[in-house]
Order: sequence, then C-alpha cells, then structure tokens
Amino acid sequence: MTSARANIDGVSAEELHDVWATLAADERAEAFELLRAEEQADFFLNLRALGQAQILLGLPEPMRKTWMRILPPDDAADVLQEVDAKERELLAALLDDVARHEVNALLAYAEDRAGGLMSPRFARARPDMRADETIHYLRRQAHDRLETISYIYVLDAEQRVVGVCSFREIFSAPAHRLMREVMYPDPVVVDENLDQEEVAQNFLYYGYSSLPVVDADGRMKGIVTIDDIVDVVQEEATEDAQKFGGMEALDAPYFQTTFGEMIKKRAGWLAILFVGEMFTASAMGNFEDEIAKAVVLALFVPLIISSGGNSGSQASTLIIRAMTLGEVKLRDWWRIVRRELTLGVILGVILATIGVIRILSWQYAFGSYGEHYGLVAITVGVSLIGVVTWGTLSGSMLPFILRRAGVDPASASAPFVATLVDVSGLVIYFEVAKIVMRGTLL
Amino acid sequence: MTSARANIDGVSAEELHDVWATLAADERAEAFELLRAEEQADFFLNLRALGQAQILLGLPEPMRKTWMRILPPDDAADVLQEVDAKERELLAALLDDVARHEVNALLAYAEDRAGGLMSPRFARARPDMRADETIHYLRRQAHDRLETISYIYVLDAEQRVVGVCSFREIFSAPAHRLMREVMYPDPVVVDENLDQEEVAQNFLYYGYSSLPVVDADGRMKGIVTIDDIVDVVQEEATEDAQKFGGMEALDAPYFQTTFGEMIKKRAGWLAILFVGEMFTASAMGNFEDEIAKAVVLALFVPLIISSGGNSGSQASTLIIRAMTLGEVKLRDWWRIVRRELTLGVILGVILATIGVIRILSWQYAFGSYGEHYGLVAITVGVSLIGVVTWGTLSGSMLPFILRRAGVDPASASAPFVATLVDVSGLVIYFEVAKIVMRGTLL
Repeated sequence: MTSARANIDGVSAEELHDVWATLAADERAEAFELLRAEEQADFFLNLRALGQAQILLGLPEPMRKTWMRILPPDDAADVLQEVDAKERELLAALLDDVARHEVNALLAYAEDRAGGLMSPRFARARPDMRADETIHYLRRQAHDRLETISYIYVLDAEQRVVGVCSFREIFSAPAHRLMREVMYPDPVVVDENLDQEEVAQNFLYYGYSSLPVVDADGRMKGIVTIDDIVDVVQEEATEDAQKFGGMEALDAPYFQTTFGEMIKKRAGWLAILFVGEMFTASAMGNFEDEIAKAVVLALFVPLIISSGGNSGSQASTLIIRAMTLGEVKLRDWWRIVRRELTLGVILGVILATIGVIRILSWQYAFGSYGEHYGLVAITVGVSLIGVVTWGTLSGSMLPFILRRAGVDPASASAPFVATLVDVSGLVIYFEVAKIVMRGTLL
Repeated sequence: MTSARANIDGVSAEELHDVWATLAADERAEAFELLRAEEQADFFLNLRALGQAQILLGLPEPMRKTWMRILPPDDAADVLQEVDAKERELLAALLDDVARHEVNALLAYAEDRAGGLMSPRFARARPDMRADETIHYLRRQAHDRLETISYIYVLDAEQRVVGVCSFREIFSAPAHRLMREVMYPDPVVVDENLDQEEVAQNFLYYGYSSLPVVDADGRMKGIVTIDDIVDVVQEEATEDAQKFGGMEALDAPYFQTTFGEMIKKRAGWLAILFVGEMFTASAMGNFEDEIAKAVVLALFVPLIISSGGNSGSQASTLIIRAMTLGEVKLRDWWRIVRRELTLGVILGVILATIGVIRILSWQYAFGSYGEHYGLVAITVGVSLIGVVTWGTLSGSMLPFILRRAGVDPASASAPFVATLVDVSGLVIYFEVAKIVMRGTLL
C-alpha cells in the first residue's frame, strides 16, 4: 500500500485513476483530497458507485454535502445502494428535498432492473406544443441538469408516452410545426421491472441511444441511456466469465473483494465439483481388476478424460455466448445436436489419429507399451472418438438444459462440463478396453 | 430451414429479427423483401454489417443502390469490409462521389482501430464563432446527417481540436459568447490507430458519450460514439469467452460460421492441448511400478488432477477479467502471488478435508481401500493441498506471463491451465505417495 500512496501524493486525475483500483477502501477519500481542485469534480463523477460511496464516507462532514449534491439522482441512488442502512440515512439526509424524493423513488427498484438503471430527468413535451416552443421550453429545462436532450418524449395528460422526437429533428423542423406532427408515434418502451440484461438486448437490437421506461399503466418514469448500457454489458460479461471459470460471480473488483468473500465465492463451487469428481474414484474402483492386470491402461486415463473435458468446454462456451447474444434460442437445440454431433466425431477422429501415432512412435523408439501395443493403440483411439463426441455433445446441450430449468446457462462452466464428462469418459474408456483386450491383456 | 421460412412470410420487423440468426446467408435478402415497406429502413439500419452485406448482395440490382446509399459512411465502410474484393468494387460503385470518398478514407483503417470505428461526420465550429452563429451553423449541418450534435468540436485553421462543448451548453449560453469562451479547452482525444479495446477503456474511464479521433499531427478525422463502443465491448467479451473456452475466436455468429471454419477454430487448440496432455502419460509411465504395487493410487488420479485444474481455472478467469477491466495491472503481480498463495492453501485444506472424510467413510462402510487406508487418506489429503495451491498459483500467474510476452491473457483458458497443472499434479501426487507409503504399500 505504501508504494501506491507515495505515487499519488499531489498527482493528476490520470495518475490517480491509474492506482485507484489498488487502493484500499479507507485510503480512497484521503487520496481524492490530494487531487487538484479543478480535477476533482470530473474524477468523482466518472467513478463507479462503489468508489463514490467510499469517498463520501471518508470525507469530513462539511465536504460530504457538496459531493453528495453534485450527483445526478440515478447515481446518488446507486451510491446509497452500496452502503449499509445507517450510512444510507446519513447520506440521504444531505440531499435537497426534490433530489431526495427522486432518489427514494429510484431506490424502490432493484439495481439490476430497468427502473434501477434509469434517470428520472428526461426532456419532455406536450403533443400540442410547437417546435419553437419546445426548443424554448427545453432551454429552460436544460439548466435543470437533464440526463440528455438528444431525445424528447411527448407525453399525454396521463404521462403516457405518445411519441418521441430527436432533438435534431425539432431543431431543423419549421418553427410552427406541432410536436404531434414531428414526433414518431408509439415508440419502443421498456417496462420498469425488465431485467437489465434484456434492457441491454433491446438497445443492441434497436440501435437507439436512449429508451423510455414505463410503469404497468404505461406512464413514463424515466430514461435509460446507452452509456448506462455499456456498464451493464461489461458487468454481465464479467459475471458470465467468472461463472464460466467455475466460481460465483464477485460483487466487487478483485482488490476490493475481501479475503473471506473470495473464499466463499470460490470454495462453494470447488467443493461441489470435487464431490462430483469423486464419482471418478468409484468408477475407476469398478475397473480395479483391469488396471491391476494391465497397468498400461492407467497411464492414458488423464489424456482420455481431459480430451472429453476440453471438447466439452469449447462447445459449452460457444453455445453460452451465442445464447447471451441472442444468436441461439432454446428451440434451436435440435439443429445444434446434429451439428455438434458431426463436429464431435470429426474432432475425435483428429485426436485419435494423433494419439495412435504417438503410441506407435513411442513403441518403436522406446518399446514403452509391451507386446500388445497394437491393442493399446486401438483402445485409446476408439475411446478418444467416443469421449470427444460425447464431450462435445454434452457441452453443447448442458446450457440448453440449464436455461430450460431456469438457471443461468453461464453456469455450464468449463470445470462443470469437465466433471460431468470425466466419469462417463472413464466408463467409455474401460468398456472399450474390455472389448478390445478380452483374451489377451484382460 | 423450411420452418423458419414459413414463419417469416409477411411478418413484422420484430418477428423477422427473432428468426434472423437462424437464416442462412442466401435466404436473408429474400426474407428482408417480405418485410413491410415502412419497417425495412429501420430494420436494415439496425443490422450488423454482416447482415447488411448479405441483404445488399442478395437484392436485385436496382434496389441495391437505395439501400447502399441509406448507410452512414462508417457503416458503409464496415459493409465493404465484410465482402470480398470483387463485390466491394461493385457495392462501392453504388455510392455517390462524396460518400465514396469518405468511405475510401475509412477503409484505410483496420476494423479494430479507432479509425475503423469512427464516423467522419461530426459537428464542428471555429473558436471565434458566437454561440448563436454556431447554433445557426449546426442547424444547416444537421440536414447533412451528422452522427451526433451532442458535442461540438472547436477546430483551428489546421483542423486541430482546440476545444469541445456540449450542445446543451451552447444552447443555454448567452447568444453573443464566443466558442473559445464556452468550450472546454484541450479535450481528451484518441489516436486513429488506437486499438478498439483501449478506445473502449477510454470511454468507460472518462464517461463521455463521444471522443474525437485525431491523426499523428493532431488533426481531427472523426468521432467515435458510445453506441459503437457497446458493440466493441460485446465483441471483445465474445472473443475473450471463446478463447477462455479453449478455442480460437470465431469471426461470425454460431450459425453463420461454416462447418470447415468451425473445425479449424476448434481442432487447432484441441490438438495443442492434446499434445500437451500427452506428458501425463509419460509422467505416469515413470510411476508404473508404484501403480502396479498399489492400484488404489490410480483410483484417485482423476480427482487429484481435476482439483488442480478447477482451482487454476478459477484463478485465471478472475485475473484475465480484472486485467480486461483495468483493475489489475502487470505491476500488481507480486500482490496477487501473495494473495492467491494464501487462498490456494485454504482452498486446498477445504478440499483435503472433504477428501479425507470421503475415504474414511467409504472405508468404514465398504472397506474399499484395504488395511492401509490411513496412508491412502494422508496421501490424498496432502496431495490435494499441494495440487490446489499449485493450481491456484499457476492459474493466477499465467495471464501475467502471457501479457508480458505480448499474448492476449485470455488465451490462459480453463483447458490450457488444466493441461499445465495436470502433469505437475501427477508428479506431486506420486511423490507424496512414495514418501507416505514407503515401507508399507510401496
């Protein structure tokens, strides 16, 4: 920590950002105060909610109010969601009445819903306003820190969205045209309770830079803008990557995650996988006699089962990612089965060829595998085709099964698929050996 | 395919989007023509470049020109990058002279550089223009399909960016203020050759919704907007996920990737991992005598090595993702070593405890492991602590080593780490066994 601290003494925003991730929670406010005054606001506003909360809690009382009030309501709500109940009350009390009201409304939503992402400060107009009136009206609203004026939402008397209009269009429209004539009617809206991952897919599909959020009665509550979506996409990709690596997703960046938290997130899955993998010991126990008769069989166990795991990991990562991007849907499962089955056989034949060449070469060079090396080669080759085909098929189907069961398909992690395939891989291998080697080695 | 075709006959944009990913390349133009005329433009503009190219090539000659000319220059350039040289010439000839000139300038950049992402149509002003003049000037420029007017860039006579100003600020500034007084001087810029992943990090760090792109002399060439960045973030996350699953990243969505391409992207890594894993056969060959004497040792081989692989996969996924997000830098390696070493030992002890309990329970219930079951339990327990610690450490360090060597750390895939750890895991296991069982089983 000392080295990082020495670096930030009297530094620029860029230098502070560079060491930010490595600072402990209680050092951040102190480091922030060392920043040049003219750079503080920009730096603060561009931090994630966690960092903003750490600064706010670390600052002396009188300075807190200034920094709390600089936050737009959606960001203020995110900050309050990062701290515990007592601190939440303390920080909320620093807001002015209007802002506190807005923030409390936002806090009613879960963080990962459309309502939790949105800003309540959007540009609005009435259907019977003229283009020049709208521009004039917006000029007044603009002082009020609107989230964006790129899109103006046209609301009826019940606050329902009846149309949308880009600022550019009003801007270049004749002054006397009415909003109802300029606007696009019935714009795409998202429900306030829609999951953030689906909100992101809406953005990607429609290509808009903001979308209105409505309640069950169609009343507009706020807007979600594309810059919030970039964060969502990054966050979801991080969660998926961590799940795919065989652990629970972390709630905070690496260095911000405590030691205890880290063990909790990792030990759970590791233990589950370990218990699952114990079946390999039972499976191999059933073939103890065969191993005792032909120890050479044991030598190829890691090679065989890892090939199944690797081909399964490839297949599951492909399908999980394609599902996240909406390229593959549940109903496509049969097309995938046919495709991956053929691919599995081809990949299996490729590995089997390499494996057989390896065994024959070592035999000629070192005589490693005894007089029945031909049977060993056949056993390994045939098993590889079976195990790789089976691994590819299981890896591609597991995400479908999980999604069907309502579980995030990203949980079909590389280690999970490998564990599933290991037991069946062993059974395939030893059963092939029993057939091929009957009457000779076994 | 027939079922998808039946579904899209006379459908809405939403329904077509729903089946879009499952349509073959040559069916897309036909499906597009079935769409209601008023929905075609929106649908077309929101497609990715690959889909746009497929439609353009599939449409009859006279319709092509309309659809080609509707594309903004950066999107037109992306389309031309998706098709082969002959088709590129054909499609480029459909553009008007101004657009073709812009598009050709963009084609000089690699797709994954700032220059390849940018739009040349940005809002500009001179330092000595007044706020009201700028608004008037923008109103004229707005007809010219500017990418965005949210930010106005102030350029000097040599086209160098001297300042930036949000539209909102000019809009609410007094009419007679000069741009040089309203603007923020010396804005953040990105070099035209900056890699798109770093461009995305700039966006996330600064929180802007657009950034100016400049050449080596500081002349402004275009802007990159946040909505292009969402695509970049998705694309990079997909590439990283596929690499982490142990394969080469695909160039196109799952169903758009040909069978041959799929084998090429998957067989390569699978074969490399297979050859690496062959060392397990050699390693086990060195312990053939031990296995022959104590077949019970072979039973736990899959359990031991998979535990190393799983803990390595967790560690590498954490570090790779933290590196992508800029949370962990190369210089942090020593902090990570200390943290992961301690974590590895703790996780190892947890698994060892479960493993020992399992062996003792099976022994009491079924007498599975003979009279020396205590030694078996000690061997397995001690090995697990060693293998999990080693797996965690290797998994966390491999991304550093790869990045140091100039390779994408995402290549430290779950299968790659598992393969590396398998050989050393076997050596640890059998060496522990030799010490623990000397004089009894061995």
